[in-house]
Amino acid sequence: MQRGKFITIDGVEGSGKSTQIDFICDYLVTKKINVILTREPGGTELGEKIRTLLLSTDIQSIHGDTELLLLFAARNEHIRTKIIPSLEKGDWVLSDRFTDASYAYQGGGRGLSIERITQLEKWVLQDFTPDVTLLLDVSVALGMSRVESRGRKDRIELETNDFFKRVRNSYIERSKQFPKRIKLIDASKTLEQTAQQIKIILQVL
Amino acid sequence: MQRGKFITIDGVEGSGKSTQIDFICDYLVTKKINVILTREPGGTELGEKIRTLLLSTDIQSIHGDTELLLLFAARNEHIRTKIIPSLEKGDWVLSDRFTDASYAYQGGGRGLSIERITQLEKWVLQDFTPDVTLLLDVSVALGMSRVESRGRKDRIELETNDFFKRVRNSYIERSKQFPKRIKLIDASKTLEQTAQQIKIILQVL
Repeated sequence: MQRGKFITIDGVEGSGKSTQIDFICDYLVTKKINVILTREPGGTELGEKIRTLLLSTDIQSIHGDTELLLLFAARNEHIRTKIIPSLEKGDWVLSDRFTDASYAYQGGGRGLSIERITQLEKWVLQDFTPDVTLLLDVSVALGMSRVESRGRKDRIELETNDFFKRVRNSYIERSKQFPKRIKLIDASKTLEQTAQQIKIILQVL
Repeated sequence: MQRGKFITIDGVEGSGKSTQIDFICDYLVTKKINVILTREPGGTELGEKIRTLLLSTDIQSIHGDTELLLLFAARNEHIRTKIIPSLEKGDWVLSDRFTDASYAYQGGGRGLSIERITQLEKWVLQDFTPDVTLLLDVSVALGMSRVESRGRKDRIELETNDFFKRVRNSYIERSKQFPKRIKLIDASKTLEQTAQQIKIILQVL
């Protein structure tokens, strides 16, 4: 049994992940690939409960390190009980967000030390990593204008524009640091043009 | 303002912590010391929600590393938003369980690597540590006989006797490793005799 591929898709709010996820699933189905669609934080029963804690606007504030530990707790459950077992069965796994989001949001956005995030990443993931990460890049202004139309915001979406600018810059920095794994995709174009860029990447995976 | 003292009380199920906590609070009040009583996992709004996740019998199983990360997430919130601010105000803090419980339950009980627990402890606590830890020691048979009378058990209390024997042994090992901080107290005697042992420790704190 050939091990499946692990694809993650990431980017700031309003970068169009949901639409492109639909495209990727449809594309893989035409290739007769069984794909498990999942998301972070979440993806497991326990992980979804942690997601609810993290995104709830009931809790006024969460210490940055606590937020990071909760994200990695959910991620560990996700990897050990869902992602790796699926890959070993030969399925492909597509995750809406993964560890790069912790670097972008908690590192870039909240200013947590990148070195400390790396320590926790090593503790949890050891050397497990996605086969490819599709980073959908849009300006914060464009992303936010797409989010505004969605209605009620969660605890993270309530952050400031400066926060999201730091998040976007961190994502771009990471794509430069890991150019083989992280594919920076211009997501400011039409949905079809963005999907076309993704298709080219998937074809050689 | 003199910094307050941080006391933790730990031990297997049925070691009589609750009764001795009442005694300690009463004793400190007679000494005109303002004491904040708290517990782990929990102690904060977010921490109590994490406690609910951890102790719920709804979730069939949780990966050992995930459990440990959740415990340290709750602990970080507890230390940063409640314990340290209280100590800095001059209050004393008494916590029903603390990090030693992670070594005993997740290390001894579940068999997680002590080295990995230490890595996470250093990440979260840096060099923060209790001034004194009161370790109430009873045999598993005696402890369990006390727990049986309480009614419905949580996810941890449902573990086997062998699990709790490993937990007890780990606690005893830790008291040998840190003899200055961890005071091993024979809690198989009467409540008054146990309280007397605790009083002697508190008098010189």
